[in-house]
Amino acid sequence: MLRDLALPELLAAFSSPDPAPGGGSAAALSSAIGASLLMMVASLPKTRTSSAEDRTALEAAAGALAGIRERLTAAIDEDTAAYDGVVAAYRLSKGTSDEQAARKAAIQRALRAATDVPLEVMKQSARALEEATVVAAHGYKSASSDVGVAVAMLMAGITGANLNVEVNLEGIGDPVYRGAVEGEARDLKERVAAIAQTATDLLRVR
Amino acid sequence: MLRDLALPELLAAFSSPDPAPGGGSAAALSSAIGASLLMMVASLPKTRTSSAEDRTALEAAAGALAGIRERLTAAIDEDTAAYDGVVAAYRLSKGTSDEQAARKAAIQRALRAATDVPLEVMKQSARALEEATVVAAHGYKSASSDVGVAVAMLMAGITGANLNVEVNLEGIGDPVYRGAVEGEARDLKERVAAIAQTATDLLRVR
Repeated sequence: MLRDLALPELLAAFSSPDPAPGGGSAAALSSAIGASLLMMVASLPKTRTSSAEDRTALEAAAGALAGIRERLTAAIDEDTAAYDGVVAAYRLSKGTSDEQAARKAAIQRALRAATDVPLEVMKQSARALEEATVVAAHGYKSASSDVGVAVAMLMAGITGANLNVEVNLEGIGDPVYRGAVEGEARDLKERVAAIAQTATDLLRVR
Repeated sequence: MLRDLALPELLAAFSSPDPAPGGGSAAALSSAIGASLLMMVASLPKTRTSSAEDRTALEAAAGALAGIRERLTAAIDEDTAAYDGVVAAYRLSKGTSDEQAARKAAIQRALRAATDVPLEVMKQSARALEEATVVAAHGYKSASSDVGVAVAMLMAGITGANLNVEVNLEGIGDPVYRGAVEGEARDLKERVAAIAQTATDLLRVR
């Protein structure tokens, strides 16, 4: 499991000529780090105005972010497993017409799984960005740069996950599934651009 | 050392209420992962056109990226050490006027170190982005999404490191140092925006 590796081994896994782990796992990791930085700022003893309202908002955000990070961390390994599933399906025997049909169906199932994982990473990253606006509004002002880095890494996670959604979707035949995923990914991208702007604006308020 | 931690412990370190490790270390890590993905694509057995020119270009890129990643990985811990140095300087005794002068000088030295580390992360990330254009031009077409994720994570690393340069520069009195760093950071940001666009355009070429 990638999540059990120490950092040098993890980086070596990403740089090895093996295609997996690849960009999909890296995108999930980018967002998991972004969520972690937000949890840190939400847990600092100091808040923006030292008000009870700040503390209540930040505690709720920290709780939500812990769940989001858990999902993103799981997706690091899930993406690699899904990629391995696609490779395995392409390697199935295609001697008889029955085998060809079975292989084709297996490839479609595997590609859907490899699309669903980065789509979930996009969704969880968008949820984390919404919490970033709470942390930016109520968190300790001196930690603004940490929130800014978190926003940048969540946006990179979303961009990266979206590239993986697109590349896997290319091989999927079912137009209904394709249309649904394309629409969802487009909506998520539009929404997060607006949320990231809101968070960044809040960080600028002195 | 952060680089010796397994992933769950590393994420826990980023999310703990301790301010360090914070956004500066996360930004260096983002770029180290981006450089790793580029190394993977540069080392794949397949290249864009299977030409000797592709292989030569990719081997040179992989070599350069290995050195860049080493610097970025070192910066993950260096940024946390530099932050700890700033905290330690602020905690120095300020009873006598001699102590006050010594403390002020120590804070200035510590803030410079805490500025130099993210500035170096920006420089190394910009170098990695330049290699990304080589990998995008000569690398295996099917790995385009991995190059795209790498570019997004390097840009997040640069944005994040730049936020840390700015926040530490605020406390530095020396106008010559400030001016030099501000100019360098501005030039880097302009240059990387153009390089990232070039890489992204190359990825779109079929």
